[in-house]
Amino acid sequence: MALSFYELNRRLAEFAQKRDWEQFHTPKNLSCAVAIEAAELMEAFQWLSDEDAMAAMGDEEMRAAVIDELVDVLIYSLSLANALGISVSAAVLEKLRRNAHRFPVEAWRGRARSADRGETGAD
Amino acid sequence: MALSFYELNRRLAEFAQKRDWEQFHTPKNLSCAVAIEAAELMEAFQWLSDEDAMAAMGDEEMRAAVIDELVDVLIYSLSLANALGISVSAAVLEKLRRNAHRFPVEAWRGRARSADRGETGAD
Amino acid sequence: MALSFYELNRRLAEFAQKRDWEQFHTPKNLSCAVAIEAAELMEAFQWLSDEDAMAAMGDEEMRAAVIDELVDVLIYSLSLANALGISVSAAVLEKLRRNAHRFPVEAWRGRARSADRGETGAD
Amino acid sequence: MALSFYELNRRLAEFAQKRDWEQFHTPKNLSCAVAIEAAELMEAFQWLSDEDAMAAMGDEEMRAAVIDELVDVLIYSLSLANALGISVSAAVLEKLRRNAHRFPVEAWRGRARSADRGETGAD
Repeated sequence: MALSFYELNRRLAEFAQKRDWEQFHTPKNLSCAVAIEAAELMEAFQWLSDEDAMAAMGDEEMRAAVIDELVDVLIYSLSLANALGISVSAAVLEKLRRNAHRFPVEAWRGRARSADRGETGAD
Repeated sequence: MALSFYELNRRLAEFAQKRDWEQFHTPKNLSCAVAIEAAELMEAFQWLSDEDAMAAMGDEEMRAAVIDELVDVLIYSLSLANALGISVSAAVLEKLRRNAHRFPVEAWRGRARSADRGETGAD
Repeated sequence: MALSFYELNRRLAEFAQKRDWEQFHTPKNLSCAVAIEAAELMEAFQWLSDEDAMAAMGDEEMRAAVIDELVDVLIYSLSLANALGISVSAAVLEKLRRNAHRFPVEAWRGRARSADRGETGAD
Repeated sequence: MALSFYELNRRLAEFAQKRDWEQFHTPKNLSCAVAIEAAELMEAFQWLSDEDAMAAMGDEEMRAAVIDELVDVLIYSLSLANALGISVSAAVLEKLRRNAHRFPVEAWRGRARSADRGETGAD
């Protein structure tokens, strides 16, 4: 099913509203929540090498844990978008357009950091 | 425009592929990238009270900065979903269903933490 | 007891060495570990207002949890200092000196962010 | 110089007091500040492999950047210890003692995660 951001955000808003949780969903609190879940996502790979982390994604339990944390990051991120009243997909597309100019294919192919290390790409 | 996650993820994958950036987009690296951007999102509200943070969202420059960081969180999160080959909207809906059971409306209305502090809701 | 950084770092190094854990203590892994523990520290205050978070520090269980996470942040930070072979106290003092110039008392008294929001102090 | 935590914390407290910054140094705000600086520390290694991150520590500019962020993590962590009125070195030593029991040398030598992945050591 190809659910739109719009519809997903509507369901998240309804979930919070039913529990009277909008009072906790301040921009600052939601930004903290995103960061906390992002750290739990990282924790799934803690002490693993890049190769072992990749291999671990073939382990069903590890994979489910990663997806679970990733979903939490998304839920709080989309809740913040709701709290700010912005259209996520429009904002993401606009950024992709800007990034296309900032990181021209020719100059950045195969490179994740600029030569002087002042800028990172790979996003 | 109500873009689907599916279509958005397709564009992100294309963006990375053109720059030969899949080599950097390991699950571990992407989880770090999500956490780094999440912290930059928090930084927009650093030292502000909840009230001042909310008020700051009426300031165009501050608001644009927050949206920009939020979008970065989403871009890396969706890139990780791509790397794992999962359908984001299905995973989010599934979690919402589980959360509906975990946090029944009656027990959790207006409360973000359980009485024994062992669990936090508000997501 | 006023233990020096130097002595504390020596004990941390010994702890890791005995378990043959230096192999995991790469600079990148340790930086992730610091960030993971820092998020757990934040989580102790999740959804609380500044006032409630302060009040919670009078609750013995909450206070112990915060101290525990804070100590984890310190342990990994000092382990990274060990891995890099730097003297922590010299580095902190040097930074305090630089900050004293960067944030002159007169200009920054009672202000945590610069007027143009381009810089944050309060550190 | 082997400065004690105690003396360092005294200087940090004085620095904040002179600027009337204690008002911003709430436990919640300081926990966010630690997390923000920890993410900046990670950013220094973003997209690098473990090996390249290690090699980068031989580059003077990169090394200075890492030390700078590490110091910021420490400054905020110690400021939080100040705000809570705890003795850092006693708390770290106490944790080391508990960890010595939790991670016996024989069982954990060369292993950073338990077999069932439910626990991570290497701290």
